[in-house]
Amino acid sequence: MNEPMKIAVIGGGSSYTPELLEGIILNQEVLNVSEVWLADIPEGKEKLSVIEDLSRRMVNKANRQIKIVATMDRREAIKDASYVVTQIRVGQLKMRRNDEYISIKHGVIGQETTGAGGFMKALRTIPVMLDICKDIEELAPDAWLLNFTNPAGIITESILKHSNVNVIGLCNNPINFYKKFAKAYNTAVEDISINFIGINHLIWITDLYIRGQSRIDDILTGKSETYEAKNIPSFGWDTDFLQSLGAIPCGYHKYYYQTDRILEEQLEQYKNNETRADQVQKVEKELFEIYKNPAIQEKPAALEQRGGAYYSEAAINLIKSIHLNSKKIHTLNVRNNGTISCLPDDVSIEVNCVVENHQTTPLKVGDVPPQIRGLLQNVKAYEELTVEAAVTGDKGVALQALTLHPLIPSSGRAKDILDEMLEVNKPYLPQF
Amino acid sequence: MNEPMKIAVIGGGSSYTPELLEGIILNQEVLNVSEVWLADIPEGKEKLSVIEDLSRRMVNKANRQIKIVATMDRREAIKDASYVVTQIRVGQLKMRRNDEYISIKHGVIGQETTGAGGFMKALRTIPVMLDICKDIEELAPDAWLLNFTNPAGIITESILKHSNVNVIGLCNNPINFYKKFAKAYNTAVEDISINFIGINHLIWITDLYIRGQSRIDDILTGKSETYEAKNIPSFGWDTDFLQSLGAIPCGYHKYYYQTDRILEEQLEQYKNNETRADQVQKVEKELFEIYKNPAIQEKPAALEQRGGAYYSEAAINLIKSIHLNSKKIHTLNVRNNGTISCLPDDVSIEVNCVVENHQTTPLKVGDVPPQIRGLLQNVKAYEELTVEAAVTGDKGVALQALTLHPLIPSSGRAKDILDEMLEVNKPYLPQF
Amino acid sequence: MNEPMKIAVIGGGSSYTPELLEGIILNQEVLNVSEVWLADIPEGKEKLSVIEDLSRRMVNKANRQIKIVATMDRREAIKDASYVVTQIRVGQLKMRRNDEYISIKHGVIGQETTGAGGFMKALRTIPVMLDICKDIEELAPDAWLLNFTNPAGIITESILKHSNVNVIGLCNNPINFYKKFAKAYNTAVEDISINFIGINHLIWITDLYIRGQSRIDDILTGKSETYEAKNIPSFGWDTDFLQSLGAIPCGYHKYYYQTDRILEEQLEQYKNNETRADQVQKVEKELFEIYKNPAIQEKPAALEQRGGAYYSEAAINLIKSIHLNSKKIHTLNVRNNGTISCLPDDVSIEVNCVVENHQTTPLKVGDVPPQIRGLLQNVKAYEELTVEAAVTGDKGVALQALTLHPLIPSSGRAKDILDEMLEVNKPYLPQF
Amino acid sequence: MNEPMKIAVIGGGSSYTPELLEGIILNQEVLNVSEVWLADIPEGKEKLSVIEDLSRRMVNKANRQIKIVATMDRREAIKDASYVVTQIRVGQLKMRRNDEYISIKHGVIGQETTGAGGFMKALRTIPVMLDICKDIEELAPDAWLLNFTNPAGIITESILKHSNVNVIGLCNNPINFYKKFAKAYNTAVEDISINFIGINHLIWITDLYIRGQSRIDDILTGKSETYEAKNIPSFGWDTDFLQSLGAIPCGYHKYYYQTDRILEEQLEQYKNNETRADQVQKVEKELFEIYKNPAIQEKPAALEQRGGAYYSEAAINLIKSIHLNSKKIHTLNVRNNGTISCLPDDVSIEVNCVVENHQTTPLKVGDVPPQIRGLLQNVKAYEELTVEAAVTGDKGVALQALTLHPLIPSSGRAKDILDEMLEVNKPYLPQF
Repeated sequence: MNEPMKIAVIGGGSSYTPELLEGIILNQEVLNVSEVWLADIPEGKEKLSVIEDLSRRMVNKANRQIKIVATMDRREAIKDASYVVTQIRVGQLKMRRNDEYISIKHGVIGQETTGAGGFMKALRTIPVMLDICKDIEELAPDAWLLNFTNPAGIITESILKHSNVNVIGLCNNPINFYKKFAKAYNTAVEDISINFIGINHLIWITDLYIRGQSRIDDILTGKSETYEAKNIPSFGWDTDFLQSLGAIPCGYHKYYYQTDRILEEQLEQYKNNETRADQVQKVEKELFEIYKNPAIQEKPAALEQRGGAYYSEAAINLIKSIHLNSKKIHTLNVRNNGTISCLPDDVSIEVNCVVENHQTTPLKVGDVPPQIRGLLQNVKAYEELTVEAAVTGDKGVALQALTLHPLIPSSGRAKDILDEMLEVNKPYLPQF
Repeated sequence: MNEPMKIAVIGGGSSYTPELLEGIILNQEVLNVSEVWLADIPEGKEKLSVIEDLSRRMVNKANRQIKIVATMDRREAIKDASYVVTQIRVGQLKMRRNDEYISIKHGVIGQETTGAGGFMKALRTIPVMLDICKDIEELAPDAWLLNFTNPAGIITESILKHSNVNVIGLCNNPINFYKKFAKAYNTAVEDISINFIGINHLIWITDLYIRGQSRIDDILTGKSETYEAKNIPSFGWDTDFLQSLGAIPCGYHKYYYQTDRILEEQLEQYKNNETRADQVQKVEKELFEIYKNPAIQEKPAALEQRGGAYYSEAAINLIKSIHLNSKKIHTLNVRNNGTISCLPDDVSIEVNCVVENHQTTPLKVGDVPPQIRGLLQNVKAYEELTVEAAVTGDKGVALQALTLHPLIPSSGRAKDILDEMLEVNKPYLPQF
Repeated sequence: MNEPMKIAVIGGGSSYTPELLEGIILNQEVLNVSEVWLADIPEGKEKLSVIEDLSRRMVNKANRQIKIVATMDRREAIKDASYVVTQIRVGQLKMRRNDEYISIKHGVIGQETTGAGGFMKALRTIPVMLDICKDIEELAPDAWLLNFTNPAGIITESILKHSNVNVIGLCNNPINFYKKFAKAYNTAVEDISINFIGINHLIWITDLYIRGQSRIDDILTGKSETYEAKNIPSFGWDTDFLQSLGAIPCGYHKYYYQTDRILEEQLEQYKNNETRADQVQKVEKELFEIYKNPAIQEKPAALEQRGGAYYSEAAINLIKSIHLNSKKIHTLNVRNNGTISCLPDDVSIEVNCVVENHQTTPLKVGDVPPQIRGLLQNVKAYEELTVEAAVTGDKGVALQALTLHPLIPSSGRAKDILDEMLEVNKPYLPQF
Repeated sequence: MNEPMKIAVIGGGSSYTPELLEGIILNQEVLNVSEVWLADIPEGKEKLSVIEDLSRRMVNKANRQIKIVATMDRREAIKDASYVVTQIRVGQLKMRRNDEYISIKHGVIGQETTGAGGFMKALRTIPVMLDICKDIEELAPDAWLLNFTNPAGIITESILKHSNVNVIGLCNNPINFYKKFAKAYNTAVEDISINFIGINHLIWITDLYIRGQSRIDDILTGKSETYEAKNIPSFGWDTDFLQSLGAIPCGYHKYYYQTDRILEEQLEQYKNNETRADQVQKVEKELFEIYKNPAIQEKPAALEQRGGAYYSEAAINLIKSIHLNSKKIHTLNVRNNGTISCLPDDVSIEVNCVVENHQTTPLKVGDVPPQIRGLLQNVKAYEELTVEAAVTGDKGVALQALTLHPLIPSSGRAKDILDEMLEVNKPYLPQF
């Protein structure tokens, strides 16, 4: 059971890596990780080198026996790994910036994972991820692939549909809800039960229990606070709306339920050249300056501002549960298989799952009320088309995907956005 | 089989009645109608009287033995009827005008059946229709109820869910497609096969056959024309869009696929006080002037401009099919029951049905492609909530319904519209 | 539309062919058949020659211009045919006799299509039928394949799952119900509506209407008679049972509902060497003696005793409906596709369908009550396994199929039967 | 959380009670049980008194502060209980004997829970259980009802359909599999993962993992042994059969897969007046002799021969999981709700569930292969009809239930059995 294991991180030069590494270090007694391979592409060589050095310093400081290997050879990294973690960003932050600017320019919300922005990111990312999966199929067929790459639900669905890799899509949204409620109710995370329904970045909480007592009404009436992601604008929730919804929305719901206000704010940011992508680029730059500092031997506190709070904890907890065959519950992106009856069987959903060494089994989700169902089905159908467009390179399917998205006001607008995006993303979209 | 039968028309003072009557007169040899009862409410007394007189003149001119009875007593009209036809407009055209103006004022499309406008019309109409159904359950339990009242799909669903009446929802949209293609291909309606998927006013044609040969590509590539309703603005369809959709949309799809352009046009009309409701009011006025003319003894040609082309033909054809147990195919609004697998069982859908004397049986609809499915499921969930809101008078459910509608950009906007609508419609919404 | 057409009959030497030919001759003005190709295998050469000669005499007598071609070359017969009719019997009647004797010897019902007998016939027939389908895919890809070969439901399912041919499975059971009720109620077949639920040879009538009036209670209470196939023993139905069933069973239901009595009778026949197969062999012999008689120029009346009453009428009616794009209702074996919600999508079912030139569309079947559902699902699962066993030649799957069948009392018995059957059928089962 | 709690045992005079009590005593530090109420009916007064005395001795010996109350007043026992355990036997062992003898006499398997025997037990028991549920709804609406009363799946389904009580059906079958495999693989129960599909007493194991490694093939090939219930005859499993089944059957499957051999054995026992019921009566008598002995202060070892091994452990483990909100996995009888997609939503199934203080959530079960599906659906449909028959007292529904059961060879036999059973059970079946 506890043989030494190898972990491969694809996109190892990401600013998030130190957080993941911290988790590995802290849990080394349980996990017994012998090697961590950090793979990246030539464009990321410099960053990777910074991360590699920092990683070594962290391992040494903690006095752990973990070999750190940085490489441009993805296949070497993957070979015989027990876990492959993917946190790539095809086209890097500059393409994310394009995603946002093109969207807002055409009068629709520009966002990393939701709407037109997430759509384009998916088109760029899916072919690369499927290539990685081919390597895993060949070189580490028994490995678990933990995918963090956004849009995580769509990416995971493309892998579920087009490869044989054991993939789990992971997001820090669910764990943040647990942490938030644990703090609000001054209790342990284990005492909290959350009934989730949804898909990645569109997940509703239909009930919340603290030690078996339903407390969802505290949130719906505004008596207690819900989790708000730092990277999403917050105008608060109308309690009439929440109570009639009968569920706690996640942060990304604001793009759908408060479209007009968010769009207004984004247009302002657009004019001032300071959208979220601009902010993130700044934060990244600063982070890497810190990382370079040889005096830094632990995960810097500044990383927490980056937006991926508890991301590492979610990943490490999951690896522990798999490794230890714990039968614990994690909220994961997995194949639907009828778990949410109103969605197709072959799509990805984000729900509570029991995790064992050999399988993740979703807990059955009950009836989905219409106010949740309608939006959920619409966005999921958009995601299905997005996966198909990315895999086939069919421009017509891409047009249908964008047109169907609730944030796009017409097929004409969809076409205009698509045309510009395809042009700008040309180097990343050989399939079109 | 061919015993004399009574037909009750609720909303008999409607300007459409002469068309229905013409159909009855023309098919009298087959149908053997002995009595047509025209029921209306006190506010419609004057119009009813005009229609009553015209109806008598039409019957006399045609030399038919059909008794025409106008009444304010709905129950008398319904008693022992074989068919009840409902074509009511709760709040009359002035409330339709309010529906449109309130919507556009808040920056969303204002339309009789789609979006915020149709929503408010549904709230006003459903309680009245369910009252009518109670009378039918008591006084004519074996009657077929043919409902034309808009939004026909939502109204029909409310009856399917909350009464035991044998209801069929009817729309002239499908028959217009048949007529259009028959003309375009210079062939008989019988030679045309249309595969429909959808719900009332949101119905896609997924294939079109002329004598067994698929011709849908003619339409999708723009080689041949599709049917365009006169009452919906037309900017043409982009053929790239049509081909990737893989289906012919109906006129009402423009509100979803061309939202921005239609909204722009409506804002213009709004400023000039000439929305569709204004136009219809004018047409109605002119029509009744003509109807009053004692020299008029037949359905006036001017009626055709009113927008409900072939409405009567659809109704009379259906009555004939039921009456003669013809096993012919009609496109009707009926309970889903799994016919469209991706929608709930208990909702109304608009699909091809085999019509017999005792039952209407929908033809199984195959897989629904995602580009159709996503929008269809979203709008249907909105309709379910609308039915629930109308029946319960729950303002929270109403808020969720409006928020979920693809044409409403946020829950805040939904709330504003809802507040104003509830205020303006107060006399018609005792349930709230 | 009415171009001259070619019909290919695979198994043209069957004693049923004259009936089919009579139908073609009688409908020649509508169908305009130019050529009928009768294909058979060397073992059937003699019979084929008899049928060929009789066919020519029939055509001449009727003064029709129809070319009759007999051939051992199946591919020549299929090439460019508009309709291919399959009525083959792999292993001929002597193997049917073996099916029956092996079954009864092991203490279970021996029957041509139901239970162990039908199972073995399916294993022999499916590979041959799939070969024929390959020829059709290549040589007549637009042809309709009308399959009469038993067990028709299982055979049709194998083709639906493993070929691209446009197949329709056809049985004379449904048409016999229509004929029976038309006679009983002294009315036209068109006046009768029958709601069927089921699969081939296991089809329930859940309602029966004469001109829109439900009359099923007449049958359930024994006031009126149902159809009884001549080739199935009849002990009558207990009316308590029928009324609680709430549906009219078909003849083959007796094998399930009256297993003990039928088995008793079969054991008696077995001892006396006069099972159904023995009787049929005798009838066949006599029929061919008649066919050989040059004086015979029409379908001999004796054929009606053979058991396939109205078989030809069902086939010709169907061909007419397809050819004329009639949109009429036929009861056919087609892919389920959710028509019967409690069965898998990809199986064959026998239900009412609307027939057009280009497609057959099943009418949606409503909820299936548990007393029907349980047996239906059990037998269908057996059929799925049988198709899989026949295609893969997997003995384990075959064992599971037989064990699951309600007429087999244990896995041990299934194994014994299977072993003997595989031995006896060796020449016909290369896949095992 | 850990407030003192009251447990009510309905059927407290059962010979199983000492086992349950032992569990309570052993876990008292965690559970903090303050009162155990043992309720029974006048016919069981004597036994109850024996159990009451033994219980007191056991509590005293263990030096626990648990109040033991025996009562004829069921309502008093239920009032404010946290857990209600039902282990009743309507008509006692003498009626079980009748169930077995009537069945075998008519040539079908006689068994306590499967087939005709279980059917009759269900008819007797369901009305009594629904009465108990009415008391729980009124007097302890928040209590969890743990039902052990057989046929546990059918009884649980009747409660799920016809009451609002929080019911969980419990059986010792699953825990015995865990225990068996833990022993066979010399490992802890926690290291074992079992994928179950099925319903009570008809549950298949589709995979078995020891610390994440699949070991099911060990069982299917006979290399390792499966669990065999002591109360079911064992002829061993044919490994060809097991391997093609692809799943480990439970003991009760023998009634279906080895019907002929079991029936043969039962006919022998019947002739000698020593069926299972006879044996159990003897064991019970001996047990109570032991129980009466004042020297006995602990659960006697002899109880383990009674057949309900680990019954108490299953119950106490479940109570602990609920009480401690453990989120652990138990195999329970719960409402389906789409967990097994091929069964109706409102039926009971037996599957792995996550247990929390406020809810039990089933883990989604994947596709069910046809060889399992066919039998499962058939028996479940029988169970649905049995529940309906018991609740309505409709003899026709009862006839359909029995006829549909795979162990009954015809509707005639079903009728004969039903007639005799209804006669013999008259005092217990007021609903008929």
